[in-house]
Amino acid sequence: MTTAADRFAIKGFGPENLPYASFSPVDGKPRLGARLGNQAIDLSALADATGGLDRSVRAAISTSNLDALLAAGCEAWTALRAWLVDAVTTAGGDGIVADSSYPVDDILLHMPFTVADYVDYYASEHHASNVGKIFRPDEAPLLPNWKHLPVGYHGRSGSVIPSGQDFPRPKGLRPEQNGSPSFGPSRRLDIEAEMGFILGGSAPAGEVSVAAAAQHLFGVVLFNDWSARDIQAYEYVPLGPYLGKSFASTISLWVVPFEALSAARITPPARGPALAPYLNDEGEEPWGLDITMEVIVDGHTVSRPPVSALYWTAPQMIAHMTVNGAPLRPGDFFGSGTVSGPEKGQRGSFLELSWAGKEPFAVTPDTEMSFLTDGQTVTIRGTAPGPGGSTIDFGECTATVLPAT
Amino acid sequence: MTTAADRFAIKGFGPENLPYASFSPVDGKPRLGARLGNQAIDLSALADATGGLDRSVRAAISTSNLDALLAAGCEAWTALRAWLVDAVTTAGGDGIVADSSYPVDDILLHMPFTVADYVDYYASEHHASNVGKIFRPDEAPLLPNWKHLPVGYHGRSGSVIPSGQDFPRPKGLRPEQNGSPSFGPSRRLDIEAEMGFILGGSAPAGEVSVAAAAQHLFGVVLFNDWSARDIQAYEYVPLGPYLGKSFASTISLWVVPFEALSAARITPPARGPALAPYLNDEGEEPWGLDITMEVIVDGHTVSRPPVSALYWTAPQMIAHMTVNGAPLRPGDFFGSGTVSGPEKGQRGSFLELSWAGKEPFAVTPDTEMSFLTDGQTVTIRGTAPGPGGSTIDFGECTATVLPAT
Repeated sequence: MTTAADRFAIKGFGPENLPYASFSPVDGKPRLGARLGNQAIDLSALADATGGLDRSVRAAISTSNLDALLAAGCEAWTALRAWLVDAVTTAGGDGIVADSSYPVDDILLHMPFTVADYVDYYASEHHASNVGKIFRPDEAPLLPNWKHLPVGYHGRSGSVIPSGQDFPRPKGLRPEQNGSPSFGPSRRLDIEAEMGFILGGSAPAGEVSVAAAAQHLFGVVLFNDWSARDIQAYEYVPLGPYLGKSFASTISLWVVPFEALSAARITPPARGPALAPYLNDEGEEPWGLDITMEVIVDGHTVSRPPVSALYWTAPQMIAHMTVNGAPLRPGDFFGSGTVSGPEKGQRGSFLELSWAGKEPFAVTPDTEMSFLTDGQTVTIRGTAPGPGGSTIDFGECTATVLPAT
Repeated sequence: MTTAADRFAIKGFGPENLPYASFSPVDGKPRLGARLGNQAIDLSALADATGGLDRSVRAAISTSNLDALLAAGCEAWTALRAWLVDAVTTAGGDGIVADSSYPVDDILLHMPFTVADYVDYYASEHHASNVGKIFRPDEAPLLPNWKHLPVGYHGRSGSVIPSGQDFPRPKGLRPEQNGSPSFGPSRRLDIEAEMGFILGGSAPAGEVSVAAAAQHLFGVVLFNDWSARDIQAYEYVPLGPYLGKSFASTISLWVVPFEALSAARITPPARGPALAPYLNDEGEEPWGLDITMEVIVDGHTVSRPPVSALYWTAPQMIAHMTVNGAPLRPGDFFGSGTVSGPEKGQRGSFLELSWAGKEPFAVTPDTEMSFLTDGQTVTIRGTAPGPGGSTIDFGECTATVLPAT
């Protein structure tokens, strides 16, 4: 007798992955699902068919998205995943799973959760160094605080949008040579290829360890923090980015559970100088992640940013976020910041790939670009090693730039 | 026959004001109320007694807080206020109002709404100039962008807390002379006396006029954006404030409807250089606000910041927030930034009052201070002129600093 994993699993979406989404079948209401191969499993329907789920977890998945599950906390997440893996790997269970499933080509995906607070970090040393070299060529590439804390700032939660939602080029005040800015569509529209981290549970206020912080890490998505570099450059002193970022930030819609990344866990880069105790992860389990991203412009791969190169890990970023007493709420979300590796072909922004427009880069053998033109589509993909030689696929994070309104 | 306004009104909370709150009577559930004098009127109970409210508005006030009313939009706000003013000024209506009311001394106040996105601006020229003089004494006090756009950044929505909720001194990385930071409780805990603006309705994406932006302005509160200056100073380059702000931001709990401020509307300061069209309010109704704040430390008034001095108005800040296509959601909230006037006794932060600690200021004839010590209580009050010589009182925004955990 076959299992659902035998029958439906395809590379990247096997029973090792099982990412979650909010989806609607044609003419159906939004519901919570998990992906196995090319099938979206209706979790509530599957639970009705199999039973075996704790009542509170059962209630948390009987909703249209991840919000209730995020609030339920990490024990619920573990229980749900154990039940789901069991359901899709039980001999003879493929019929039951099939009855609760829809082909992924026939469903609509929605925002998987309600974003509470959204923070964007700046955790890639290569990215931060490149930005320093571009904008402060006569100074040290990294600012003095960079290796002491994960630099970050709050972004606009309401502008986090689902993959596939196109958006118009943003307008704003752009710097001009004569000193006075001009108002109009951004001339330097860029991407930031990032990983996004979705948090849950609730935390008592106060200092938490890196390991305790990690208990709030529900899942991981691909993230594109679209950036209007000219608007950002004009507005950002002294309080940081605002309208240069807040028009659109795209997330991928299949949320990979952090538990699915056990085989992707690696030791992060060596740190120095020494870290404050709340950030120190020496002797901890390794919290780095061996995820490789792919940045694709109109179908052509232009970069492969390596998440393994991030200096700061997700648990460190959570510990930092809360060390001042700030509450952590279910649905809190943060981006890693642009992921860039040491090689040119690993840079996660067009700012870096084109060195601020001075060195246009090739998209095809015949075409090159610096910043985005209207009608271009950027897609980010990502994969990580899964257990037993499997692959964990993150799906895609995509949108097309429409002309300014 | 007396009216409720005759019987209950006391200075500052007459029928010209009628601020809204979420409150619970002793042993009762949270509900939406309005304040008349020293009474909190249960709006849903009053609507049952009087009738006369449109069905959709009636539904929007049958909840525990302002969320549904904010979503209902400005026509609902106008209809509700007209009905409420009528109810409290109708001859013989005092008995009906009394039956739906509770003494304000006997109720508990709650967060009046769910904060969607929170933005903090920097709209006071005197404040921005003082900060420039303190931190960049050899340069022009204002940065080049300051008079071209309202500088702002996103803060942490989850850290916006109700007046009366005390909080521990935040911990974080503080700058030290030797270059490496130290971890510990903030040594430079400060206030920022601001006005807060609560938004509602929903806006189609895209450029809106200042007048159209104003239609989203539901109400106004006092706001204290507590700031750990040392943590902020270490972390803020290049992406702006983060943990130096995100531990606590206190709002007052009686939300003054923008409509109550008709007599406080004044022409804002003269602007120059010329503004981009989406920010230009020449020829518009005057959007400045003649509100006087009072900053009180342990019972002693130390400053009276004048909101009339703000360079940027609330409608301009809304127009700016959305000009790049960012969505406006019900529950969006923004602070004006520290309100400071031209005189020393009008500065809205201890950073400015003590000139970064170099000139401690008097709290009483016998005591002076620079930054906050544990156990100190800061209360902000505010009043504005109301119609016919009345006063609009904003209540208070208060909290006590507890020792670090």
